[in-house]
Amino acid sequence: MFLRNCWYVGAIDHELIDGKLLSRTLLGDHVLLYRGDSGAVIALNDRCPHRGALLSHGRREGDAVRCMYHGIKYDGSGKCVQIPGQDMIPPRLRVRSYPVVERRPFIWVWMGDPALADPAKIVDLPYLSDPQWKGLPAYLHYDANYLLIVDNLSDFAHLAFVHTGTLGGSEEYAYVSKPKPIERLERGFRVERWHYDSDVPPFHKKVIPEKSAKVDRRNIATMLIPGIFTMETLFVPAGQGAQPDSFAGARQYRNCQFMTPETERTTHFFWSYLNNYEGDDSTISRSLLNSLIEGFMEDKAIIERQQKTLDDDPKFEMLAILSDGPLVHFRRVLDKQIEAERAATASPPAESRRAETATS
Amino acid sequence: MFLRNCWYVGAIDHELIDGKLLSRTLLGDHVLLYRGDSGAVIALNDRCPHRGALLSHGRREGDAVRCMYHGIKYDGSGKCVQIPGQDMIPPRLRVRSYPVVERRPFIWVWMGDPALADPAKIVDLPYLSDPQWKGLPAYLHYDANYLLIVDNLSDFAHLAFVHTGTLGGSEEYAYVSKPKPIERLERGFRVERWHYDSDVPPFHKKVIPEKSAKVDRRNIATMLIPGIFTMETLFVPAGQGAQPDSFAGARQYRNCQFMTPETERTTHFFWSYLNNYEGDDSTISRSLLNSLIEGFMEDKAIIERQQKTLDDDPKFEMLAILSDGPLVHFRRVLDKQIEAERAATASPPAESRRAETATS
Amino acid sequence: MFLRNCWYVGAIDHELIDGKLLSRTLLGDHVLLYRGDSGAVIALNDRCPHRGALLSHGRREGDAVRCMYHGIKYDGSGKCVQIPGQDMIPPRLRVRSYPVVERRPFIWVWMGDPALADPAKIVDLPYLSDPQWKGLPAYLHYDANYLLIVDNLSDFAHLAFVHTGTLGGSEEYAYVSKPKPIERLERGFRVERWHYDSDVPPFHKKVIPEKSAKVDRRNIATMLIPGIFTMETLFVPAGQGAQPDSFAGARQYRNCQFMTPETERTTHFFWSYLNNYEGDDSTISRSLLNSLIEGFMEDKAIIERQQKTLDDDPKFEMLAILSDGPLVHFRRVLDKQIEAERAATASPPAESRRAETATS
Repeated sequence: MFLRNCWYVGAIDHELIDGKLLSRTLLGDHVLLYRGDSGAVIALNDRCPHRGALLSHGRREGDAVRCMYHGIKYDGSGKCVQIPGQDMIPPRLRVRSYPVVERRPFIWVWMGDPALADPAKIVDLPYLSDPQWKGLPAYLHYDANYLLIVDNLSDFAHLAFVHTGTLGGSEEYAYVSKPKPIERLERGFRVERWHYDSDVPPFHKKVIPEKSAKVDRRNIATMLIPGIFTMETLFVPAGQGAQPDSFAGARQYRNCQFMTPETERTTHFFWSYLNNYEGDDSTISRSLLNSLIEGFMEDKAIIERQQKTLDDDPKFEMLAILSDGPLVHFRRVLDKQIEAERAATASPPAESRRAETATS
Repeated sequence: MFLRNCWYVGAIDHELIDGKLLSRTLLGDHVLLYRGDSGAVIALNDRCPHRGALLSHGRREGDAVRCMYHGIKYDGSGKCVQIPGQDMIPPRLRVRSYPVVERRPFIWVWMGDPALADPAKIVDLPYLSDPQWKGLPAYLHYDANYLLIVDNLSDFAHLAFVHTGTLGGSEEYAYVSKPKPIERLERGFRVERWHYDSDVPPFHKKVIPEKSAKVDRRNIATMLIPGIFTMETLFVPAGQGAQPDSFAGARQYRNCQFMTPETERTTHFFWSYLNNYEGDDSTISRSLLNSLIEGFMEDKAIIERQQKTLDDDPKFEMLAILSDGPLVHFRRVLDKQIEAERAATASPPAESRRAETATS
Repeated sequence: MFLRNCWYVGAIDHELIDGKLLSRTLLGDHVLLYRGDSGAVIALNDRCPHRGALLSHGRREGDAVRCMYHGIKYDGSGKCVQIPGQDMIPPRLRVRSYPVVERRPFIWVWMGDPALADPAKIVDLPYLSDPQWKGLPAYLHYDANYLLIVDNLSDFAHLAFVHTGTLGGSEEYAYVSKPKPIERLERGFRVERWHYDSDVPPFHKKVIPEKSAKVDRRNIATMLIPGIFTMETLFVPAGQGAQPDSFAGARQYRNCQFMTPETERTTHFFWSYLNNYEGDDSTISRSLLNSLIEGFMEDKAIIERQQKTLDDDPKFEMLAILSDGPLVHFRRVLDKQIEAERAATASPPAESRRAETATS
């Protein structure tokens, strides 16, 4: 059960170059994504309604796509515009289309009722289009439900044990510090946490000259429905963290991660990790890309095994500890929205609108 | 749900040489096929009723087969004839046998009530045994229900898009021509179609000297229950097609294809593609074999993906277009026969006869 | 459905060296096995009750283990002893532990109610710890229910057909001899069988100098609940078998095999095949190890195919012949014990004891 009336990242712009017909399952729907000759990105259900052949195995013609089984052609809105050997086109022979908004470098897709697709609802992340901030958007696939990744990101405690040698830096952090209270938001939570006078964590040490100095590190993380995680990270020389008005020598990062369900058991994971200090030295963002992949792989092994454990024993109920406060809150607000959406869909007017949508 | 009271191709003669114990699933039944010392081809259920070991892992002894787990031996009718260490043979210890008829090069197996197995019901294809016609019988396995292959063969329109560079030759064919009406038969359909003044399609061009001349091409295709497709193809120099009495310079092909369900989701595909003009030049039938495999592989990719699409979403209903007339008719007559068979089986007398068969 | 209140072999001692955290599924439970610094072998449920991460992916600390997702630590009894960042430890945060007894080289695990775990119930096999008897304990995995392996071992007849060239020696044995009556035991059966004046079977011929002499061979086999097979084998020169008081030149083997269910469809198979005559010539036990593996592989191919046959057609009922007496008896006494255990578990007092156990 997914929240459908919201925007999900469906692709990165570089995945659609050269007219690529990209087949990607989003929330269980098989979706064909491509950039038409007009420049617009188009999202259609990836199935010819005639005999079920994949449109992604077809041929793009301008903004349209032709099924290469019997040659039936659909325009970018999903409307059938040609049946070889047949003049009359039955109106039911349509492909469902999905609203798309491009916010470089990410392509956002609306998976619910098109009438409700308001681009203003897309989360605003200005650093993604700010030339001062540099980063390389990237993709990973997880064999796990997206909420297990949300859980993972909702608890800083795992940094100490899972990422000791990569993103974290030391187990000691976990033993001496206590979970911070979170700021509860209507669509998620925000948490701010300082770690004072600590060693420089490995991913950061690789890209800075001052490798042995102690640092104060501040993380401000936000998790928003349906699975949008951002984290602003700031490093200052140890001691400056206590003087919030003088972050002169700060090095900063902007981390954004988008979890889009592929199926109930698999997830598309898009992210970009940006820094504001590399200038023309692109080795920094490339090193950071590799460091993040290294860290995510540590999470991935655990999270995918969790999924297997849950599949193995559906009766298993996880037991929360104190640091699970944020993820418990997030699941609660998400469940509430899904429930509200389900109730709205079940009521007569919305239902008839949806039925129309399904064939439009 | 399959039609059981009919003949299916179960093997090609060359598959049974050298005493091979061939294990093949037909209509969901695990069948052991072999040629006994007497020369007869024998079909038995491939399971020892004692502990369930495979008889195909056993040892052929004359026309009999011995299970090599505990040494129990069955004759060609499935009757147990020896239990090592035990004198009395319990009558229930029998293996089901299936009626077999050999019509070189194909082995036909009757999957239903043996009492109804009439060899006269096997489709007569005289060119298969006519020395004038040359061809190499062959086999492919499909991960798809056999009716999806029947569908594919029931619509010439796909030649233009799927087989442009192999069996078809041009997309233009699809745009300019209209579907032809079919001749509805009690057990299938027949369709005849001319394509005048066209380029020589690639598979044919490879094996003839007159590569650049235009041709008139006639296809007469027949599809019969349960999944028997034949097509007579004739090429004459362009212009002669309109003069049906003078096919002097004709080059002709006989195509026969047999779709035998392995399971609900997989199919055995047997075929032979014959020509009547190669004489002693066997490179022609070998080239045609390769061209056909090349073409079938194009279909196979689409058809197997269709099966996945149907598995993914069992609620998906395909929408017919005009050119689907033949396949709609075929499915209708097949469903009628399956329904009739089910009704007959459910009635008491037939039921008791079947029960007897199952243990005989 | 397994018998849980009994001891199963869970591992071989050499599998636990160097602090190895061994993850092994036993009777469907995911179990972590390891040797703590105290020398004791510990068996815990291999799942952190917090978020379900595998403890076998964690870190051993003394006799304790730490989950390396969020750092929670459990002692050898499964009690939680540390939650980083949290002082209060909720009592429910416990891991189930299993009673373990080590009898070199095998590790026995009690899969049922710990209150009933009596080490005296472990079968006594003195030759396993007798320096006179030499053998190499080993392991195989079967993709089959453990009872299909029990069945296999319960019938000497298969030696003639499956192991003609390895452990058996000749088909003639099966044709001339009759099944022997078995001695029915409360927890299984015992059978004794002589084979007089026979060729030396291949596995034995490899390791003895007198290769062409005829021998008398005696096998005394015992099968005990839940799946413990032992066989004492004795070879004497042909003719001496009839004079039971003079086994002077005898060569003897002790074979013990332990079938432990992994799941309903898979099995852990532990064994050791010992001889009492090799002295310092370890090539003999190594040759025997290889011969046994060779023989087991012959069984494995058949048994795993049997499992597929049963999965394919759950309605298939095997038909017993005379030589199936032992396995029929074994399944009967096992079923009776499982039924008794189920009844005891269902009664109120036992139930409350079990519930306590599950969380202890």
